[in-house]
Amino acid sequence: MEQDFWKMREPFGVLADSRETAARVVELLVRRKQTVSLAESCTGGMTAAALVSVPGASQVFENSFVTYSDRAKNRILGVDWEVLQKYTAVSAQTAAWMARGCREAGEADLALSVTGLAGPGGGTARRPVGLVYIGCSYGERTVVQEYHFQGGREEVRSQAAAAALMLGLGCLRTDE
Amino acid sequence: MEQDFWKMREPFGVLADSRETAARVVELLVRRKQTVSLAESCTGGMTAAALVSVPGASQVFENSFVTYSDRAKNRILGVDWEVLQKYTAVSAQTAAWMARGCREAGEADLALSVTGLAGPGGGTARRPVGLVYIGCSYGERTVVQEYHFQGGREEVRSQAAAAALMLGLGCLRTDE
Repeated sequence: MEQDFWKMREPFGVLADSRETAARVVELLVRRKQTVSLAESCTGGMTAAALVSVPGASQVFENSFVTYSDRAKNRILGVDWEVLQKYTAVSAQTAAWMARGCREAGEADLALSVTGLAGPGGGTARRPVGLVYIGCSYGERTVVQEYHFQGGREEVRSQAAAAALMLGLGCLRTDE
Repeated sequence: MEQDFWKMREPFGVLADSRETAARVVELLVRRKQTVSLAESCTGGMTAAALVSVPGASQVFENSFVTYSDRAKNRILGVDWEVLQKYTAVSAQTAAWMARGCREAGEADLALSVTGLAGPGGGTARRPVGLVYIGCSYGERTVVQEYHFQGGREEVRSQAAAAALMLGLGCLRTDE
């Protein structure tokens, strides 16, 4: 299953419905008696909402954090201030710290993090709107993937939420 | 404005679009240089996601919590265990504790809490599916309202998210 997992590092546009992916994540976690927590920035709770849509999610989902400001990322998830200053909030480094910090703050086995530029403002040529980093911490590993989503603010956010769940599913399957 | 506010204690079915309400909440908070945080149970992040949909929300929104399990309500928001055991998670008492605890944990001026039975299972004759308690802590006051929403799981949840934002708006306006 390793190959299947790494394939997902490629950016992709159209994603499976996030509720369907959420249902598969919940199913795998129920089977393993494990839990999931989330640290969301630009998605602002959309990923958690997709998880809670799954009947029976309460078996695997206890809590989740929306850390929208840098200060919240530091205070709640323990993301290092130097990391935030050096790499900015929208970076692979911050996504990794968020995922690891979320696993601890959320006392969960699997943690997903999302941080990105949803727009409409804030983009630059080097860091355009649609740039999103998603982190996953599970078992011994923390993985981060970079995405470039197209569309307006809501489209970027919903694609990011779906991608986070897909990454979580990929990490769970890698360990099967 | 007091009267306008108390009117909302009546249960109601159809609600204004939650994004529109979210935009008005953000607008008022920006003007007052104040912040908002959320403690969501059955809505699981939907209310936070509606807030983040508003451009400029970052000026007033730093963080938010999804506390789905009793344990998370106690651990993250400080909801008293005795309150959870005596009144259950879906109660006016728990909603009030969640709102107050969220204000502290989120270091916010305004805190909204949502806890309810979204179904499809878990309802009883006395406590039917659709029963939702929403709390708002702002200034010197913490207010809780009881709602009875109709519809399936997703409908109950989206109505609850919209009602939470409406209650927040009501509390902000009462203090105008």
